[in-house]
Amino acid sequence: METARPGRRDGYVHGYSDDETRRLGEQADTLAALLHDGTAYPAGSRVLEAGCGVGAQTVHLAAGSPGADIVAIDVSPASLERARARVTARLPAARVRWRHADLFDPPFGDAEFDHLFVCFVLEHLRDPRAALTALRRVLKPGGTITVIEGDHGTALPHPGSAAARAAIGHLVGLQAAAGGDALIGRRLQPLLAAAGYHQVQVRPRTVYTDQTRPALVEGFTRGTFIAMVEAVGDAAVAAGLTGRAAFDRGIADLRRAAGDGGTFHYTFFKAVAVNLGAPRGRA
Amino acid sequence: METARPGRRDGYVHGYSDDETRRLGEQADTLAALLHDGTAYPAGSRVLEAGCGVGAQTVHLAAGSPGADIVAIDVSPASLERARARVTARLPAARVRWRHADLFDPPFGDAEFDHLFVCFVLEHLRDPRAALTALRRVLKPGGTITVIEGDHGTALPHPGSAAARAAIGHLVGLQAAAGGDALIGRRLQPLLAAAGYHQVQVRPRTVYTDQTRPALVEGFTRGTFIAMVEAVGDAAVAAGLTGRAAFDRGIADLRRAAGDGGTFHYTFFKAVAVNLGAPRGRA
Repeated sequence: METARPGRRDGYVHGYSDDETRRLGEQADTLAALLHDGTAYPAGSRVLEAGCGVGAQTVHLAAGSPGADIVAIDVSPASLERARARVTARLPAARVRWRHADLFDPPFGDAEFDHLFVCFVLEHLRDPRAALTALRRVLKPGGTITVIEGDHGTALPHPGSAAARAAIGHLVGLQAAAGGDALIGRRLQPLLAAAGYHQVQVRPRTVYTDQTRPALVEGFTRGTFIAMVEAVGDAAVAAGLTGRAAFDRGIADLRRAAGDGGTFHYTFFKAVAVNLGAPRGRA
Repeated sequence: METARPGRRDGYVHGYSDDETRRLGEQADTLAALLHDGTAYPAGSRVLEAGCGVGAQTVHLAAGSPGADIVAIDVSPASLERARARVTARLPAARVRWRHADLFDPPFGDAEFDHLFVCFVLEHLRDPRAALTALRRVLKPGGTITVIEGDHGTALPHPGSAAARAAIGHLVGLQAAAGGDALIGRRLQPLLAAAGYHQVQVRPRTVYTDQTRPALVEGFTRGTFIAMVEAVGDAAVAAGLTGRAAFDRGIADLRRAAGDGGTFHYTFFKAVAVNLGAPRGRA
């Protein structure tokens, strides 16, 4: 979802501002335990993070697998530079190499990696299956891919309202107009199977907040999800999808889910799958 | 959700047939691990299950707390008899006493129980807060209440369709017309707080199915959720909410979520809270 990064030919609905960079970092920390639990690669294993963006997840990836040799690629040189700065500042000893590259055409040899890690990337791609297929070429037989994505259809603010639902819908619509799919979490299993992976295992990672969990309300519901919806307000108004007053009413209604008596539910989907096939030649 | 039981003055949208009884049993087994994990009461503790229905959850409650003294009440004598037969057959040694009683007016002394257990009941009550308040009287200070409810707003079939969403909506609408709330899971925290409980802790228990988990597809998605929606078809048509063809199309579309390439997501909410207050006099 929010920490997503663009792929080739695809726009990035959340923009590239400093505020956005800071927001991505904060939400990643809050969610890290939930999302990264269970992901730890052995020392010496070769791991490719495809679409590292500003490095919000790279920090946790490196922290969870301190002995792994991580290569992080992104299609945006600016994001890559921010990612390098972030990881260097937080984890000076991290073994991460950075490379400007397109995940649809990874500049690596067949079967060069033991594991692939793809987090909040597929949601922004026009052809996520093609991306997964291209990445499979550089994964050794028996190697694994881990994919994490959100799905805004699981967003359940209480109390809810038509205006709140509409505001979320504008984010989904803008992302679709940019070639992405903010509802991709639900279809990770068929996507990975169609891209030739085996032993696909998808599990839900659900975030729930209410006033008894103030840090999560602040870090996730208000600071991540509502902020992400709010950030597309100008674009939604400019695109004629809504008026400013209606959009702002939606945001105000969403904030009630982060207030006393409010609750919020959101599910991320985490998939792990195996490349059983022999490596294929480069396309 | 599906294993719900009626309270005083409230209808039971799922009916009381033998098929319904069997369905409740099957789904309870499939979901037992997910829902009951973490619920185990010490030997000798006095536990009240309020609204035991046909005993689908009582079996798991008793199995998880073999030394506890369980009292199970229900407003329906017929359901209570079925519950007794089910538990006796499956767990002959279970320490369960059965009592025909109304949870809005529990026939017990103040602070008579160490723990309360309420599963798939509040969703069918016109005034769940009043029920929780009435039950708190018989809970000793320092005792806990555990509440488990579903929320059909979390139901996410893939692929989806307008007809599928409409069919689910008819179940929600019929339950609302009968005085219940099939979307109650999201508001357990404010409900328990309003009823005077403290240290309310609500956590999501999310079920996700796809073709890699055939038992869960069969037991939950097809055998529980879709069957539950399908079961209100006659009532929805009779109430003029839909036509038979449109409803059947919705069910057919829902079944695609249980087929190859389909996925399904649903979140239950499990709450635990403490009664800190002194016992109040009976109303």
